[in-house]
Amino acid sequence: MKATQYVKIDGKFQMHRGGYLESPSIAYETWGKKHTDCNAILIFTGLSPSAHASSSTKDPKSGWWEDMIGSGLPLDTDKYFIICVNSLGSCFGSTGPASIDPISGKPYKLNFPVLSLEDVAKGGYEVIKSLGLKKVHTIIGCSMGGMSALSFCIQFPEISERLISISSSARALPFSIAIRSLQREMIRRDIKWLEGNYDPNDPPIEGPRLARKLGMITYRSAEEWEARFARERNTLEYKDGDQFYGDFAVESYLQSQAERFTGQFDANCYLYLSRASDLFDFNENGGSLAKACEKLKLKASLVIGVKSDFLFPIHQQEELAKNLGRVIKNSSFIALDCIKGHDSFLVEMDAFRPVISDFLESQ
Amino acid sequence: MKATQYVKIDGKFQMHRGGYLESPSIAYETWGKKHTDCNAILIFTGLSPSAHASSSTKDPKSGWWEDMIGSGLPLDTDKYFIICVNSLGSCFGSTGPASIDPISGKPYKLNFPVLSLEDVAKGGYEVIKSLGLKKVHTIIGCSMGGMSALSFCIQFPEISERLISISSSARALPFSIAIRSLQREMIRRDIKWLEGNYDPNDPPIEGPRLARKLGMITYRSAEEWEARFARERNTLEYKDGDQFYGDFAVESYLQSQAERFTGQFDANCYLYLSRASDLFDFNENGGSLAKACEKLKLKASLVIGVKSDFLFPIHQQEELAKNLGRVIKNSSFIALDCIKGHDSFLVEMDAFRPVISDFLESQ
Repeated sequence: MKATQYVKIDGKFQMHRGGYLESPSIAYETWGKKHTDCNAILIFTGLSPSAHASSSTKDPKSGWWEDMIGSGLPLDTDKYFIICVNSLGSCFGSTGPASIDPISGKPYKLNFPVLSLEDVAKGGYEVIKSLGLKKVHTIIGCSMGGMSALSFCIQFPEISERLISISSSARALPFSIAIRSLQREMIRRDIKWLEGNYDPNDPPIEGPRLARKLGMITYRSAEEWEARFARERNTLEYKDGDQFYGDFAVESYLQSQAERFTGQFDANCYLYLSRASDLFDFNENGGSLAKACEKLKLKASLVIGVKSDFLFPIHQQEELAKNLGRVIKNSSFIALDCIKGHDSFLVEMDAFRPVISDFLESQ
Repeated sequence: MKATQYVKIDGKFQMHRGGYLESPSIAYETWGKKHTDCNAILIFTGLSPSAHASSSTKDPKSGWWEDMIGSGLPLDTDKYFIICVNSLGSCFGSTGPASIDPISGKPYKLNFPVLSLEDVAKGGYEVIKSLGLKKVHTIIGCSMGGMSALSFCIQFPEISERLISISSSARALPFSIAIRSLQREMIRRDIKWLEGNYDPNDPPIEGPRLARKLGMITYRSAEEWEARFARERNTLEYKDGDQFYGDFAVESYLQSQAERFTGQFDANCYLYLSRASDLFDFNENGGSLAKACEKLKLKASLVIGVKSDFLFPIHQQEELAKNLGRVIKNSSFIALDCIKGHDSFLVEMDAFRPVISDFLESQ
């Protein structure tokens, strides 16, 4: 985490749905150089990534958007000053439920106030302010981060010049809420969750693993798995005599994916960010999506979606693009044919790179 | 269960994947009268229903296909002799993991041999044989039952005259396997499951409830829930101070649906039937779907699917229909526009009734 920087917010940070945090911190990383003219690109992440979107000399470990950020890449570090923030409420440096509450001297756990993506957006603003930036060239948000980005643009319209929303939406569908609600229930039914009071050294593992498996099911697509696994079998050794599990390659894939994630993400932080994704509703800014969009002062916008995404389905993204298009002259919508579902923006770089390049180059 | 009848199979019942059951029983119900000419319709159910598909004088309680079976309805009891079987391995009268093993005198539990839908089909055959029927006018299978019906038609080609496959497929996709694998894991992670050795009076409840919620998510569609719930909120009383659950109407709907199911279905039976659904592969009969279909001797077939079904997606059903059409002259495929997903055949009767009526009347 050598590349991680922090902004410590002085005093009380008021939360959107009530309550406050005392002097919270926001973690972020940057790549490229700040120019006197507006060259900053601010990235809001999905639910689980850290601010480490790409490697750098300070931290050579690959980031979650390694093939998007760098010299000669779409988010070109020779031109732009790229900033990625770790969401408030997360557990990778920003203040969240696993952090120490300076007032009590103990971890917040469930005493953390209700988290909203409006708060996550405000966390991003604190980073921008601390860097002395008056304008941001482009705000980018992926998945949940697209909702944080929308909130940023409406809370700070004078700062936000352009928006790129990737595989996101203006508000969650009941189908997506149902899935996240069930994931939270899986975590909370884990006997080690202890109403949020688990020992950080002995945290719930099984519940989060189940939740991650459901996550993976919703992040990919049936089409991809049919092409990749079909009905491929595992060896009998993998099954290990278990008659209800392990015959199929797709089962061992899910297991290994879930194990990679397990223990990486604090369970309470997950619960807060997951619920914040359900609660966010951009339409609350005026009563409808059309009215909310009218309050934006963007020069340009780009909405990118993937047709095989069923967590943030393409029709929602098309609707967002249409409403942005009513008020923003330079507005576009791209529906990609990628088969890797919601996760495509992380793994189908050849499809996403040209779209983002074209948008930035045309500005 | 006054309407339930039983056929007791004499001696050893060999299971498709090895092992045997000693003198198992198959539960079934019938409606209408058996004629000397072939007028029998045999129904194989989805994973969870009993043989009680419709009410009768002996059992006036509504059945799971109440609006399909009866005088003047598509499955017309004035014309047809309707038979619905409870799947072998289930817990509504047919022998299953919750039944007493006559050899040990104790419940089978996980000593029940691996269940296959080929065995379920054979159970249906035992009912047909005991009723003295040489031919069956039409075999109908819904969801998992469609796979049992395909197996019946290929195991007993001389008996099977027509097939109606509803919202089913020739074999499961890896996406559907992944969902069922996760459901089984939820059940088995329940501390009360006890490796299958739970007390029937104190069975696992929470795991099956989570599994049922995931079931409901996959049985319906995002489109239906958007129309039905959108972002409708519950009262604060429903939330009961819970910050991670209960804000949205879709969450209370899932909870009430899951509670209706909980305790109704034996957990081990669910695990066996769920795994049987994954394992079934009609293509094994010859190496491909085309070759398997060539072995059928049907006079007519009808495949009905629903475009919003993502557990048994329409493209799989179209593929089945296409392959049946290569060898069966009177073969048709209907893709319905219902928005209630996989469950449509249970709840969108106005869409399904005319399709089934037309098929039977044209014979």
